Amino acid sequence: MKENIPDKVINRLTLYHCILQDYIAKKDEYISSKQIASLLHIDDSQVRKDINILNNSGKSRVGYNVKDLKISIESTLGFSKTKRAYIIGAGNLGTALANYDNFANYGLNIVSLFDNDPDKIGREINNKKILDIKDLPVYVWQHYVDIVILTVPVQYAQKIADFLVNTGIKYIWNFTPAVLNVPQDVQVWNENLMGNFLQFTYDIK
Amino acid sequence: MKENIPDKVINRLTLYHCILQDYIAKKDEYISSKQIASLLHIDDSQVRKDINILNNSGKSRVGYNVKDLKISIESTLGFSKTKRAYIIGAGNLGTALANYDNFANYGLNIVSLFDNDPDKIGREINNKKILDIKDLPVYVWQHYVDIVILTVPVQYAQKIADFLVNTGIKYIWNFTPAVLNVPQDVQVWNENLMGNFLQFTYDIK
Repeated sequence: MKENIPDKVINRLTLYHCILQDYIAKKDEYISSKQIASLLHIDDSQVRKDINILNNSGKSRVGYNVKDLKISIESTLGFSKTKRAYIIGAGNLGTALANYDNFANYGLNIVSLFDNDPDKIGREINNKKILDIKDLPVYVWQHYVDIVILTVPVQYAQKIADFLVNTGIKYIWNFTPAVLNVPQDVQVWNENLMGNFLQFTYDIK
Repeated sequence: MKENIPDKVINRLTLYHCILQDYIAKKDEYISSKQIASLLHIDDSQVRKDINILNNSGKSRVGYNVKDLKISIESTLGFSKTKRAYIIGAGNLGTALANYDNFANYGLNIVSLFDNDPDKIGREINNKKILDIKDLPVYVWQHYVDIVILTVPVQYAQKIADFLVNTGIKYIWNFTPAVLNVPQDVQVWNENLMGNFLQFTYDIK
């Protein structure tokens, strides 16, 4: 089923999920497509269309049942399958991501961080140990991870990427502005902040 | 012209731009669509199609002139118009973004940061002062900014957003996982990390 969901819909569904978490925290039981649409400044017919692709039976006269809808989104998007990750680079961005507890709600389990700075190695961030980057090949071999999150300074990005590829890593979530040269069987997701910035601010005169 | 460029093309063009910066650093004069395509694991016909929408005359038998192509992308995407921004929240993520010098290359000028922590107020990050969030309305009035970058803890996000809206801010680049409730005339770009993560890792078995 999920194979057929376009990226933009996946993106919107995760935003609906954030809204539902908020409603659950406020102990609201129902939510309408209009309420979701209004928060995201989109059309409510779009919201209904997105929700229709879920296996969701929680619609009633007063709206969608918040908890049912949340579970539908989670099962459709596969939140329940936990993915293990290392963060490479324990600078400010790596630290921010290691502290981001919301990840666990989406099935992302950050196991530990790696850095080459002796002052950082051995410390903990949010109960995750900072390990020596030199030991990464051994760790990857002993404790398999699905992805690595790359948050090193841009000038080291390619060198570290080469190293990661050699250890057998197949998924790199790239937060650096470097475009990485990797083999075809390695997937890179470029967290292209500048592209987003230019799209977002494009109509500022 | 730019009105007609789809978001996905803008996103790819900024990635080409990153590659060109790299080529310039390596003192390479020419680049082919195949070289760009191979780095991004996309089709080279796609690259040529994207570049064709630019006002670019730098194509020769040996490929595109790297410097000309870089300038074409910049003028088409409007990098040259500088946009001023405040960062709200001087935690790890705010600090990482304040340290991200690449922003300036894309016309994003981060003027200063705001926080409510007395230990942080008055300090500097990358030559940008951390100011008291209480003084924000005065600053917005005296030193206009186009956008704010929101990097506060999720539980404060809506409260701060309300405050920002009241000061007249019209563009919020939201790095928190909160979906913000703002008036229709305020634009929010949700840096939806979890949506990206789910798209990226969707085919991990």
